[in-house]
Amino acid sequence: MASCVQLLGASRSPFVNRVQMALNLKSIEYEFIEENPHDKSERLLKANPVLKKIPVLIHDGKPICESLVIVQYIDEAWNNGPSILPSNPHDCALARFWAAYIDDKWFPLYKELRGVSTEEARKEILDKIFEGLMLLEEAFVKCSKGKPFFGGDNVGYLDIALGCYMPWMKAVEVLMDVKWLDEIKNPGLAEWAERLYSHNAIKDVMPETQKLVEIYKMYQAKEISTSG
Amino acid sequence: MASCVQLLGASRSPFVNRVQMALNLKSIEYEFIEENPHDKSERLLKANPVLKKIPVLIHDGKPICESLVIVQYIDEAWNNGPSILPSNPHDCALARFWAAYIDDKWFPLYKELRGVSTEEARKEILDKIFEGLMLLEEAFVKCSKGKPFFGGDNVGYLDIALGCYMPWMKAVEVLMDVKWLDEIKNPGLAEWAERLYSHNAIKDVMPETQKLVEIYKMYQAKEISTSG
Repeated sequence: MASCVQLLGASRSPFVNRVQMALNLKSIEYEFIEENPHDKSERLLKANPVLKKIPVLIHDGKPICESLVIVQYIDEAWNNGPSILPSNPHDCALARFWAAYIDDKWFPLYKELRGVSTEEARKEILDKIFEGLMLLEEAFVKCSKGKPFFGGDNVGYLDIALGCYMPWMKAVEVLMDVKWLDEIKNPGLAEWAERLYSHNAIKDVMPETQKLVEIYKMYQAKEISTSG
Repeated sequence: MASCVQLLGASRSPFVNRVQMALNLKSIEYEFIEENPHDKSERLLKANPVLKKIPVLIHDGKPICESLVIVQYIDEAWNNGPSILPSNPHDCALARFWAAYIDDKWFPLYKELRGVSTEEARKEILDKIFEGLMLLEEAFVKCSKGKPFFGGDNVGYLDIALGCYMPWMKAVEVLMDVKWLDEIKNPGLAEWAERLYSHNAIKDVMPETQKLVEIYKMYQAKEISTSG
């Protein structure tokens, strides 16, 4: 009999990694079904006909789409394990606000960075990424309240929302000879990233840096060839 | 003594209207502080230093930003009145999914529409808007389950997320001689829109069509002059 929880995904996708992290945190067993994002299966198109994208979580035959919607769903549908969203409404609003900032404003800068051709444009985008990291350092101090994670004692919503991008940030560090997190400028985030990487629910989900380096180079070559 | 709930907003903003709708649904008294989006006050910049945008809800001195984050906050922080988010996790995920679709994919088409200069480009965008409305009609049938609103018997999250755009859609109807909701093609949405407009918590929030027509013309003139 098929598992009652299936995840349509690709193990290198940060959005899929978010769902894997949430499932692990709640100790939910699931079947991982590898999809090729460049050759979409009938199964994927049927499960997510509107966006036609991974991840899709299928629970008791019902599909749920969009990574952060799925993470919230997992938190609400299963009572086992620690809460992923904070219980206090104000903390919850803060977590949702910063997760939206990360997805809509900050991480898209990395995509811009991939496409730049001049040193000046590169510097401008790097400055914006570092400004964002300073804001996220402040957010960490505010949300964690002196505890190890954005979510306090446990990995929570914002740890997942930002943490999924860490492997890609590491890949860009290798490629561009930059260092995103600095013990002086972002001491909170720098230590947080170490802790997150060694967390039981997270460590096996994080894709290997070298694999992402290869994928990044491939995307970059493709973008330069189409824009040139 | 100042009210413990303040809303920094502008009454013509659909995002501000969302917050007003949620506050009305929960019968929460609040002080409305009109902001000029083109000349940002110190108060706004201090309350929302990251996005520098309305709406901002200030509750007991703490600011909360981003319209849908605020709507969820209101639902979680006040127990009075009906629930805004569905109680069933799957229904909740559906509501969040469609709200994200509306904000990220569908409503931005209206902004594109404003900027087009050829009849061909105009037709292409109109087709996409109508396709989106067909999807939203299906979503209405699925979410409402034969009841009057997306949220069932009561106005809920998705009613607010989509409903806030109705006044702007009406303004574009006047300007472009189109009709978005058709009793044959979108019978559910067409009736829903009527019901929403006459709902006690909503009707006084909706800006007048003619005022929005003037604002739309102003935006359009500005965009054509800067792109020409």
